[in-house]
Amino acid sequence: MSPFVSFVSSGPGAPDLVTLRAVERLGAADVILFDDLSASPALAHAGPQAELVAVGKRAGKPAPRQDHLSRLLVDHARTGARVVRLKSGDAGLFGRLEEETTALAAAGIGYEIVPGVPSACAAAAAAGIPLTRRLTARRVQFVTGADVTGSVPEGLDWAALCDPQTTTVVYMGRRTFAALARTLLARGLPPDTPALLAESVSLPDQVLTRATVASLARSLEGASAQPAPALILYGPLAEGSS
Amino acid sequence: MSPFVSFVSSGPGAPDLVTLRAVERLGAADVILFDDLSASPALAHAGPQAELVAVGKRAGKPAPRQDHLSRLLVDHARTGARVVRLKSGDAGLFGRLEEETTALAAAGIGYEIVPGVPSACAAAAAAGIPLTRRLTARRVQFVTGADVTGSVPEGLDWAALCDPQTTTVVYMGRRTFAALARTLLARGLPPDTPALLAESVSLPDQVLTRATVASLARSLEGASAQPAPALILYGPLAEGSS
Repeated sequence: MSPFVSFVSSGPGAPDLVTLRAVERLGAADVILFDDLSASPALAHAGPQAELVAVGKRAGKPAPRQDHLSRLLVDHARTGARVVRLKSGDAGLFGRLEEETTALAAAGIGYEIVPGVPSACAAAAAAGIPLTRRLTARRVQFVTGADVTGSVPEGLDWAALCDPQTTTVVYMGRRTFAALARTLLARGLPPDTPALLAESVSLPDQVLTRATVASLARSLEGASAQPAPALILYGPLAEGSS
Repeated sequence: MSPFVSFVSSGPGAPDLVTLRAVERLGAADVILFDDLSASPALAHAGPQAELVAVGKRAGKPAPRQDHLSRLLVDHARTGARVVRLKSGDAGLFGRLEEETTALAAAGIGYEIVPGVPSACAAAAAAGIPLTRRLTARRVQFVTGADVTGSVPEGLDWAALCDPQTTTVVYMGRRTFAALARTLLARGLPPDTPALLAESVSLPDQVLTRATVASLARSLEGASAQPAPALILYGPLAEGSS
């Protein structure tokens, strides 16, 4: 078999929010490389033959060097094993996919990407909030709240982030949201803009907290990136069912 | 059983890109309401007992009145049947979910939303394009290219749509992209910005066409909304594998 890697999206976390295609790829894999964010319970779909390789990327902790990780992927693929690289949520969203696909392409190794349920979609669904609405939320945008150093990324399009007719989802924003919100409010976003903190989305310990941008910023002042991964939604959020 | 409706995301179309939870809900349903965009092949997961109710919403054709559709949902739920309302892609993205959930809430009927794989994520995965990239695409946004009348929506945040560091996905934009692109280019988006037309995403007749914003706009001049549903991606799209 030619060397080949399947990038498989694990979905938000619940084992029944993976796709049938992901279940198939996980079940057939000889080797599964996963980081903490994509770990159990999706790994429950791995077959008994699968070697599970933890690569240790974790919010708020130093990540392994990306080139080391890419090297691992290439080396495993070259053995002829069926290699799955598991990514949390949808692999194409904030998964640093490109670094790994570029390394595979450079090594002449083929790959596929199995799309999945983004954590943002699962958070909105759990809260009963449509991400778009016909008249009041015609645009939805996903941004990262932290760059590799853990700070608010430079060069954000602040006007786009203050648009009152857009639903915004901030990934990896727990630690930086207080700072992010200061700029948003200074640029005119109304402090009472509805916000939602979604923790451990789709897992048994899921917590959804309704707030406003101003009150959520206050409560996250001084927050660490831990304990659980969290998403923050803000904008013209509907009332919803929870 | 209390009246209850499951809004189930069908994913982009391929029957193995539905989630296990969606398969479970479809298999257990007594009644499934679907529109053309969410129809087969996801309906292959319906059980033999399921009554399949086509509600006929279709790109480029007059949609049934939304209040009629909401009425249907309420009436079916009140019979005590297990009702699934199937939505294409992810139900929370451009699915006009709110009109229906509002009607259920007003009637005192409970509901859940089963999230799914957005067509945008599946299109990007098929093209080997990450929707976000660490340095060059820190934001991703989804917009609709057409309002209910089929025209370019009013009140779009054009500056946000011209941000060179953002991946933009235009839903329902085949017919309006030429007009949309004229405004984008007039506002400074470089004409050679990479673009991708993704038709029949994840289905056997999927077609992915690489272009630039300017060349795609030219080729879609005078396009109709038919034949197949299409997504348009533009921005700092990576080279990708296809």
